Amino acid sequence: MTNPIPFGRELVISSTANPRLKAILALRRRRTREETGQTLVEGYEEIGLALSAGVRPATVYVCEQLFSPAGRAGSQDIGHQSDLLARLRDDRVEVVHLSRQVFEKASYREGPDGLLAVVDEVDRPLADLRVEGPDHLTLLSQGVEKPGNLGAMLRTADAAGVDAVVAADPVTDWGNPNVVRASKGTVFALPVASATTAEALAWLAANDVRLVVTTPETDLLHTDVDYTGRVAIAVGSEKHGADQTLLDAATHRVRIPMHGKANSLNVAASAAIVLYEAVRQRSR
Amino acid sequence: MTNPIPFGRELVISSTANPRLKAILALRRRRTREETGQTLVEGYEEIGLALSAGVRPATVYVCEQLFSPAGRAGSQDIGHQSDLLARLRDDRVEVVHLSRQVFEKASYREGPDGLLAVVDEVDRPLADLRVEGPDHLTLLSQGVEKPGNLGAMLRTADAAGVDAVVAADPVTDWGNPNVVRASKGTVFALPVASATTAEALAWLAANDVRLVVTTPETDLLHTDVDYTGRVAIAVGSEKHGADQTLLDAATHRVRIPMHGKANSLNVAASAAIVLYEAVRQRSR
Repeated sequence: MTNPIPFGRELVISSTANPRLKAILALRRRRTREETGQTLVEGYEEIGLALSAGVRPATVYVCEQLFSPAGRAGSQDIGHQSDLLARLRDDRVEVVHLSRQVFEKASYREGPDGLLAVVDEVDRPLADLRVEGPDHLTLLSQGVEKPGNLGAMLRTADAAGVDAVVAADPVTDWGNPNVVRASKGTVFALPVASATTAEALAWLAANDVRLVVTTPETDLLHTDVDYTGRVAIAVGSEKHGADQTLLDAATHRVRIPMHGKANSLNVAASAAIVLYEAVRQRSR
Repeated sequence: MTNPIPFGRELVISSTANPRLKAILALRRRRTREETGQTLVEGYEEIGLALSAGVRPATVYVCEQLFSPAGRAGSQDIGHQSDLLARLRDDRVEVVHLSRQVFEKASYREGPDGLLAVVDEVDRPLADLRVEGPDHLTLLSQGVEKPGNLGAMLRTADAAGVDAVVAADPVTDWGNPNVVRASKGTVFALPVASATTAEALAWLAANDVRLVVTTPETDLLHTDVDYTGRVAIAVGSEKHGADQTLLDAATHRVRIPMHGKANSLNVAASAAIVLYEAVRQRSR
């Protein structure tokens, strides 16, 4: 085992037995994230978005060898990582250098670009999410299981200009690295909270938010309701859809028309379709 | 090593050293798929959809222990797998039994339900895709890299009632088991082809199909063009978007409005949004 040695005043780790690497890997476990209140965000774009949203990493792990296109496949961001690193140094974020071998063990995505940050988790109490203005738009996801789906919904919600994303009875946590990755870092840019379904419904009611729930069990098309004003668009879990409590609370139950053989849409695709119907109506 | 022994007249395999298992695993490699013209489809729903589309598996691998909810987590389809198996036997499809250990090695998804079939690949020459009727709708994806995205687009295209899906210069192949899985089996239900971009554009022109290409580099919103008649909706690759050849051939270049911080949408989300704008317009 090679001991960490200083590089300027920055640590350099080249042993895969280093406890820092173990600490990074431990953050892939939900229990560790809950105990530490921290999670991982990897990649130039994702970390950049977190910084823009006011997140200050506790530590950034760096492998400059992976910054260059020779060091990795498909780079478009030559030099950008160096700029981001300089910015992090200016902000006095702890910088730790990893050898390529160690970085590739720490990395949880394909084609690592040499940047991996430890940041505070983003989940906040639902009561802290303020509903302001006449056109507040919420995305409510109930019981979604797959981190990739939750992350994909966040990315679409960000693009659609959603004001808040609430996960009701989520199976995954907002800090799951695969949520962060699939969200492309938008999890840091959007107000997000998790709560029970009952709490989420109480929050909507207290804030005079109309609730539009997607379900196959209705004749009303998603294009036939009004999404202006304070509205929440709700999608259910991959396997079971929206539960009866959520359906009972709906101002409108809507279905997305299906013309195919499989008669099913991915939950993130469903959210995208309904959110962008709201965008269309709101831009008229 | 345990040798295969007959079970009725059906093989039973309980050794992970059995060459049949190696042959299944080999189909995860593109080269093997190209050499054999075969691929894998796993799961009750996916195989059922393939059968409905007229696919006859070469072999179905079965682990009846995984049919029951006790055998696996989250089952909703108790007994359904047995019905499907009976149907396959009626069709004289070769049935091979795998021990749980062997099945779990063969399986490529979370929560296997005990059914895995070897089927012929579905890709066909573009010239064989007929454009018929005044409202033929095509989804054209150019250079999409991730099998999960291609599969997700197929699932949405099926729901939207798309008539053909063409992959131009695809990085993945239609038979990729992750395409099949993410498509929920719709890859068997939809007419699909792959071609070069030039071939795809020639095919569209020869069939009088208008081409709507999504790109951020335009002022025209995706909701401001007419999707009735013979139309192809095109999306570009995850990293680079539509290339200049595709943009130059477009009847309309459209953008999906972005109101967020990240200014990007997943390619499958983009396809879902534009396809369902077409569905909305066509149902009026």
